[in-house]
Amino acid sequence: MRSTVGWQVADSSSTLRRTPLERRDLRPDDLAVRVDYCGVCHTDVHAVGARSGEGDRPLVPGHEFTGVVTATGHAVTRCAVGDPVAVGNIVDSCGECAMCRAGQENFCHTFPTLTYGGTDRHDGSTTLGGYSREYVVRDRFAHPLPAGLDPAAAAPLLCAGITVWEPLHALGAGPGTRVAVAGLGGLGHLAVKLAVALGAETSVISRSPDKAGDAHRLGAHGLVVSSDPEQMADARDRFDIVIDTISAPHDLGPYLRLVAMDGTLSHLGHLGPVTVETLDLLVGRKKLSSAGSGGRPATAAMLDFCARHGITADVEVLPSAQVNEALDRLRRNDVRYRLVLDLSDLDLPESGVRTG
Amino acid sequence: MRSTVGWQVADSSSTLRRTPLERRDLRPDDLAVRVDYCGVCHTDVHAVGARSGEGDRPLVPGHEFTGVVTATGHAVTRCAVGDPVAVGNIVDSCGECAMCRAGQENFCHTFPTLTYGGTDRHDGSTTLGGYSREYVVRDRFAHPLPAGLDPAAAAPLLCAGITVWEPLHALGAGPGTRVAVAGLGGLGHLAVKLAVALGAETSVISRSPDKAGDAHRLGAHGLVVSSDPEQMADARDRFDIVIDTISAPHDLGPYLRLVAMDGTLSHLGHLGPVTVETLDLLVGRKKLSSAGSGGRPATAAMLDFCARHGITADVEVLPSAQVNEALDRLRRNDVRYRLVLDLSDLDLPESGVRTG
Repeated sequence: MRSTVGWQVADSSSTLRRTPLERRDLRPDDLAVRVDYCGVCHTDVHAVGARSGEGDRPLVPGHEFTGVVTATGHAVTRCAVGDPVAVGNIVDSCGECAMCRAGQENFCHTFPTLTYGGTDRHDGSTTLGGYSREYVVRDRFAHPLPAGLDPAAAAPLLCAGITVWEPLHALGAGPGTRVAVAGLGGLGHLAVKLAVALGAETSVISRSPDKAGDAHRLGAHGLVVSSDPEQMADARDRFDIVIDTISAPHDLGPYLRLVAMDGTLSHLGHLGPVTVETLDLLVGRKKLSSAGSGGRPATAAMLDFCARHGITADVEVLPSAQVNEALDRLRRNDVRYRLVLDLSDLDLPESGVRTG
Repeated sequence: MRSTVGWQVADSSSTLRRTPLERRDLRPDDLAVRVDYCGVCHTDVHAVGARSGEGDRPLVPGHEFTGVVTATGHAVTRCAVGDPVAVGNIVDSCGECAMCRAGQENFCHTFPTLTYGGTDRHDGSTTLGGYSREYVVRDRFAHPLPAGLDPAAAAPLLCAGITVWEPLHALGAGPGTRVAVAGLGGLGHLAVKLAVALGAETSVISRSPDKAGDAHRLGAHGLVVSSDPEQMADARDRFDIVIDTISAPHDLGPYLRLVAMDGTLSHLGHLGPVTVETLDLLVGRKKLSSAGSGGRPATAAMLDFCARHGITADVEVLPSAQVNEALDRLRRNDVRYRLVLDLSDLDLPESGVRTG
């Protein structure tokens, strides 16, 4: 086994502690990646919060990271030592079902192997995530990081970025389409940047008029203040695509009413059941969809698009020793717009770092 | 005022009684229509069942009927006395909003005037439906009935037909698409006929294997028995479009799982809130939509398509005096596949007919 170190929760507390970790020895198609930057995603907060106690498997969060290849299995041909790579929330899939064959490994019929909290398809071990200095990954699921993308600011593209890219792309966002993005957080701010770069007329929907400056800076052409009934009424039937990134459970009705005839509300904010009034769909022949993650070809296309358009996340980089503070800030929504952990402090001896 | 006779509920009972009715004198753009055949729709059952008592307005159901023009207002140019026409569930709209201008009067921003239980936009009266021998309607909302369509069997096209036509058309059903129709009733059997005629590979989803014969006779290429877990598993991700016409509240999950990547479940069966699991939409990037009724251009296109392909409903025609029996049979789902009232018995004196 290979030895590394990472941030782990081992009991029912919600505190991550610096812990020595083991990674598997490289299989023929494996890469070892030195993790440099890992984004802090809402999923990480949920995973830490869902700990129930004794019987839980150890948890190392983190599923959007960038780094450099440090070793390769003997059958690896796609990457070489020294290559910059990026890994998202999927690290394996069956490769044989219709979805995998269509390049939608995220919808693998046997369920894709998640980057953390998943079960390795070969040895049955629990996958441990990117809040660690090294990750061992099957080469197909490490994406070459295009030149010109800052590795810290690119890390969130691998989860937040692909999650908003998929619906924008599938729903045809581009010149002549009108896109609105509800919620300006980690997902939302990337949705705005991508929609603008795709050529769509792009608006932000936010509870607060304070977001006007940020919306404009991100390239949005308009802001609809959702707490203002008059603005919401004026915006009725206005958008071909509404990307709803609001993470708290909420009534979808007001957002469906902003969707134009034959348009779609794509709901990304959270998992679980959602309830809609049939009439809100029926009147205007609207559609409801959902999205999360993406397949390998779409991830590669998204990274290429971002490199060509100079798109990365707006990030605040923190030493990984501040991981608990980072999760707290995300719980309070005190983030504009993505926190990223710099894992290089794990190279220092433990006593040398502040564990905020 | 004009005098006619129809089947009305005037109190909180659920029994319709033969009653003299008044129709308005013709406005310049009005037609008087002798109602020959009127379909019996689930909405009629709901409307009769929703009566609460004293304060209720009189109810004459019926919103899918065919007949012949007997008089025209002086500004009418689209129809002449003697023309066969068909009327659906909308008899007026504002004509000015974006939806009306786009020919989607069914989505009129000020709400379309319903054929019964609506409020006339000029005199404020309650509209009384097609279970009567005469109806007075604005000419724009009477559709010429194409030659070759049997007037009795064509009546259900005006509600059941357009309701399934809209999603099939909007979602692109045609050669190369795979359509499944869940529920083989008034809506479902027309959805099968239309999907087959549009060139789609068409299947029926039914709880009972007994429907195989009917499905085949309607032109369907396959049957999926929804009570058979193995068949449902085999049909996973198989259909580009699933038209769900099941009228009782039910879990949409099993039907969403039959939808193929990027496909749509169109839910027509009933109004009210529906709940879906986000993951059932997310995995496979599926969409949920709803439909009901249609605009004037779509209705005309549907009637034209039906005339070219010889499509009408499978109907059982009853004398209108059996209206209460007809509603009872629909409540028990004892219909294959649409009951239609023949209103000509209203020309006879009341004592001369059996009131089933």
